[in-house]
Amino acid sequence: MTLAKRVPIFLLRLLALGASVTAAVVMVSARDSAQVFNMTFEANYTNSPTFKYFVIINAVAGGYTLIVLFCPSKVSLFRFLLVSDLIVTLLLDSSVSANIAIGQVGKHGNSHAGWLPICNQVPKFCNHVAGALIANFVASLAYLVILLYSLHIVLNLPKP
Amino acid sequence: MTLAKRVPIFLLRLLALGASVTAAVVMVSARDSAQVFNMTFEANYTNSPTFKYFVIINAVAGGYTLIVLFCPSKVSLFRFLLVSDLIVTLLLDSSVSANIAIGQVGKHGNSHAGWLPICNQVPKFCNHVAGALIANFVASLAYLVILLYSLHIVLNLPKP
Repeated sequence: MTLAKRVPIFLLRLLALGASVTAAVVMVSARDSAQVFNMTFEANYTNSPTFKYFVIINAVAGGYTLIVLFCPSKVSLFRFLLVSDLIVTLLLDSSVSANIAIGQVGKHGNSHAGWLPICNQVPKFCNHVAGALIANFVASLAYLVILLYSLHIVLNLPKP
Repeated sequence: MTLAKRVPIFLLRLLALGASVTAAVVMVSARDSAQVFNMTFEANYTNSPTFKYFVIINAVAGGYTLIVLFCPSKVSLFRFLLVSDLIVTLLLDSSVSANIAIGQVGKHGNSHAGWLPICNQVPKFCNHVAGALIANFVASLAYLVILLYSLHIVLNLPKP
């Protein structure tokens, strides 16, 4: 692959690295507490398996991106990267979707199920989660563009 | 593309079509009611925006797959299909992830947020949702295999 083709992918990976690490750090550091019926309620990411999944996926995506950034540019590696980039894109997509669903219940509740919104009690926690979700979304988008750009390169390569 | 290469993709698309239509139909037909504090609670897919998203995405994936099944096999179309298959895979992945997150709260609740599990009150509804989730997961997997197989063809890899 020529340098001109490698630069956009390198920059997109840098963006994805920054975004996924930010997402994981912001989610882990999200903390708030509230008094409900004289009991202190402590909100943090360990309260929900979906938030834990979010931290794991974004940490894995960040680690993978960091390794791949310094990979040599070989044709055989390019093929492997195309498939592994696809898997990472799916994982980031899955993480952001699951957490938007839980965040929506946290913000608006669900009157049918009797689940009350919690964001009015722990607004600082919810703002952190919203920030983490935006960062995860940016990482997903960066990986989607990397995939589309890689496909564009593959489809325009001369047949061996 | 040769017929031998087209047949596996055709069969996978048939599987994805059946699975996504099944997922949408099973979710829409999921209904149950329970008496809570002398009030009747009616559970159906319109109770949650995430369930509505599930129905829309699976209906869209089913419709798309039906159209694509009868598409002529041209090289220019193959490129378009690779990108649109990627988008459909991401949408199905997003739908199943969001609904697993909500289903997990429905089944186990979240004591930190004060969200009680509802599946012991509306078990018929929860079983339908679980079935729909499995069908969506099958459709996602079928599309992932279609994508990997298409990439395999594009990259002209030797058969394993």
